[in-house]
Amino acid sequence: MAVYKKISLVGTSEKSVEEAIESAIRRAALTLRNLSWFEVKEIRGSIDGRRVTQYQVVLEVGFRLEEEEPI
Amino acid sequence: MAVYKKISLVGTSEKSVEEAIESAIRRAALTLRNLSWFEVKEIRGSIDGRRVTQYQVVLEVGFRLEEEEPI
Amino acid sequence: MAVYKKISLVGTSEKSVEEAIESAIRRAALTLRNLSWFEVKEIRGSIDGRRVTQYQVVLEVGFRLEEEEPI
Amino acid sequence: MAVYKKISLVGTSEKSVEEAIESAIRRAALTLRNLSWFEVKEIRGSIDGRRVTQYQVVLEVGFRLEEEEPI
Amino acid sequence: MAVYKKISLVGTSEKSVEEAIESAIRRAALTLRNLSWFEVKEIRGSIDGRRVTQYQVVLEVGFRLEEEEPI
Amino acid sequence: MAVYKKISLVGTSEKSVEEAIESAIRRAALTLRNLSWFEVKEIRGSIDGRRVTQYQVVLEVGFRLEEEEPI
Amino acid sequence: MAVYKKISLVGTSEKSVEEAIESAIRRAALTLRNLSWFEVKEIRGSIDGRRVTQYQVVLEVGFRLEEEEPI
Amino acid sequence: MAVYKKISLVGTSEKSVEEAIESAIRRAALTLRNLSWFEVKEIRGSIDGRRVTQYQVVLEVGFRLEEEEPI
Amino acid sequence: MAVYKKISLVGTSEKSVEEAIESAIRRAALTLRNLSWFEVKEIRGSIDGRRVTQYQVVLEVGFRLEEEEPI
Amino acid sequence: MAVYKKISLVGTSEKSVEEAIESAIRRAALTLRNLSWFEVKEIRGSIDGRRVTQYQVVLEVGFRLEEEEPI
Amino acid sequence: MAVYKKISLVGTSEKSVEEAIESAIRRAALTLRNLSWFEVKEIRGSIDGRRVTQYQVVLEVGFRLEEEEPI
Amino acid sequence: MAVYKKISLVGTSEKSVEEAIESAIRRAALTLRNLSWFEVKEIRGSIDGRRVTQYQVVLEVGFRLEEEEPI
Repeated sequence: MAVYKKISLVGTSEKSVEEAIESAIRRAALTLRNLSWFEVKEIRGSIDGRRVTQYQVVLEVGFRLEEEEPI
Repeated sequence: MAVYKKISLVGTSEKSVEEAIESAIRRAALTLRNLSWFEVKEIRGSIDGRRVTQYQVVLEVGFRLEEEEPI
Repeated sequence: MAVYKKISLVGTSEKSVEEAIESAIRRAALTLRNLSWFEVKEIRGSIDGRRVTQYQVVLEVGFRLEEEEPI
Repeated sequence: MAVYKKISLVGTSEKSVEEAIESAIRRAALTLRNLSWFEVKEIRGSIDGRRVTQYQVVLEVGFRLEEEEPI
Repeated sequence: MAVYKKISLVGTSEKSVEEAIESAIRRAALTLRNLSWFEVKEIRGSIDGRRVTQYQVVLEVGFRLEEEEPI
Repeated sequence: MAVYKKISLVGTSEKSVEEAIESAIRRAALTLRNLSWFEVKEIRGSIDGRRVTQYQVVLEVGFRLEEEEPI
Repeated sequence: MAVYKKISLVGTSEKSVEEAIESAIRRAALTLRNLSWFEVKEIRGSIDGRRVTQYQVVLEVGFRLEEEEPI
Repeated sequence: MAVYKKISLVGTSEKSVEEAIESAIRRAALTLRNLSWFEVKEIRGSIDGRRVTQYQVVLEVGFRLEEEEPI
Repeated sequence: MAVYKKISLVGTSEKSVEEAIESAIRRAALTLRNLSWFEVKEIRGSIDGRRVTQYQVVLEVGFRLEEEEPI
Repeated sequence: MAVYKKISLVGTSEKSVEEAIESAIRRAALTLRNLSWFEVKEIRGSIDGRRVTQYQVVLEVGFRLEEEEPI
Repeated sequence: MAVYKKISLVGTSEKSVEEAIESAIRRAALTLRNLSWFEVKEIRGSIDGRRVTQYQVVLEVGFRLEEEEPI
Repeated sequence: MAVYKKISLVGTSEKSVEEAIESAIRRAALTLRNLSWFEVKEIRGSIDGRRVTQYQVVLEVGFRLEEEEPI
């Protein structure tokens, strides 16, 4: 039966929670295959004293391990 | 005094967390009256290998029970 | 070494989670200096029976205490 | 073997936590049979500026499903 | 987009955690369509003084709501 | 849109959980306006060896910030 | 320096949360010395189909260990 | 009214979660009367590099205290 | 002193929780040395409308890092 | 009866968890009276690529409110 | 297979978290055999208005039960 | 925008929590660049019957992913 791995990433965006999620997943897809689902674990961000300057979304991303793939 | 019930729904959207929430509430309003508040419990989604294909938001929705309404 | 304080605010918006966060932080910046980061603790909202009328985001906001600042 | 269902209710009272719990259970008993146990999940309430005006107790109520009962 | 509902059930078995899960899902399938996934929330049980007499598994079961289905 | 602040208080009473909650809110109302809701976070107490001598209830109290009010 | 032990008890009452707490502590005081504080962990109860028949309060009770006392 | 105590045990088995639970309860029954229920708190285990060598189940076991029984 | 790494895997099985755990660990052992312990974080599964078709167990697996091993 | 307030601070230190806690409390004592207890909520820190450069301890600090003290 | 018991202790120290842990374990070893591991559950302490006067560490301590040992 | 990865490590020390944290980070820095922050998740340890023989600190370590770096 299939085995999946979950990794923890933090995506960032100046604009929105969704853009932060998508930037993390786009980055993950550069070196990982079979990305299958994500789970948001934390939403936070930085402020420069008066305005939100960055949304930071901690998410877990799950993907199916292939036969010969190192973990 | 009033008694409320809370149910757990999962709304989905290809676009945003807010659209997923609103789709769940619009659906609930088709068969439930007196919807009053919601609480987001989880934000997750599916990926087709490289891009987010669906936001899934688990939310609890509270509504006031009417006198004669079955629970 | 620096000491920070965290306070708990609830921002609201008719439109989005991000706007609710930003409204809380803009309000905090009116009377607090050195706002530095935020952490989302809860996302909830009110419904008028059929539609979301308000997003409510509970967040903790951290800021560096200045030398002589009362806590 | 028996199967149970748990539902989530919010009982309210102007007076006490116990009265809020009991009002939720009395209401549930109007349309549900076999109520068997409850678990308090949250205690909260509203304030009119200076005094508690309502206790709100979120509770889960468990009951045994009968053979032919719709879920 | 699809909307799902999650309900909370307690399955029981004299023998194993898996049998308790399966008995809850078999019961749910009698009156609900489109059952899609489950999540175990608690594993507990009763003892008659010296031996386990019943495994009780609290689980949430998710299913897709159909167009016209009451919630 | 409105912004709310939440503070954390511990009310105490020799008699009951409700009295401890109400004493904290009465005290808060002496110097804060617009108190709007509370959430119980912990119930604990002290014992003098054989009897409960004090109920201690940790609660968060939310109130709407006025325009010019310092946070 | 002092070392304390915490034990977990479940007090019961037909009437109230406070009476359930106090019954557990009175019982503990029969065989334990130096009881010092308690923390409520769960509030639950049983229902006979239509009415609460018993409040059950799970609490941890802390007490100072004496020099030669077995743990 | 009855008072119960809960203790925390770790049962172990080379074979299954259920066997680990049952071994803990059988051991508890050697020196404790009135064992009444259990709650699984953690499931973990040891690996010898390539295979599970032991399931370890942390569980809380509840039992009614008798009149004169030391706690 | 030794340093360990923990990774998060999801094992699957049509039959049991234990088989899902063991399949994840067998897969991990193909490319990782020194596997030492596991902790179950979630038990869930898929349903084809009426029957459990797959147990999915999320677990963390710990292993000792060797001197020169990339993390 | 006494009412207490809890505030949330982050103490920092280059050296140890204890020094971070103590620096937060020393700072709080400059403008708050009656500090009575603290609870550690998080331990974290920053790294400059290879070494811990700062311990950051999030703690809640409780103090008794005086009669006329603004909250 | 072996069965373990876990108990909950609070160690105290004027100086450090580690000293509080070690004092609890040294005390436990006076009347318990086979102490095997500990898990820190809470770190807190008392303040005399301006300085930490005591670190209090809540920890669970696990030990293997011997054949004939009362629980 | 930057994307970060978080990994989970367990550092060990015979002496202190801080030394366990620092040993994990020193080891991570041997094969990872851009280490940026850590979060303590658990503090535990082993006992040889009477004395703490090892502090074990589970921590998450975050680092910025470089352009071409495999995840």
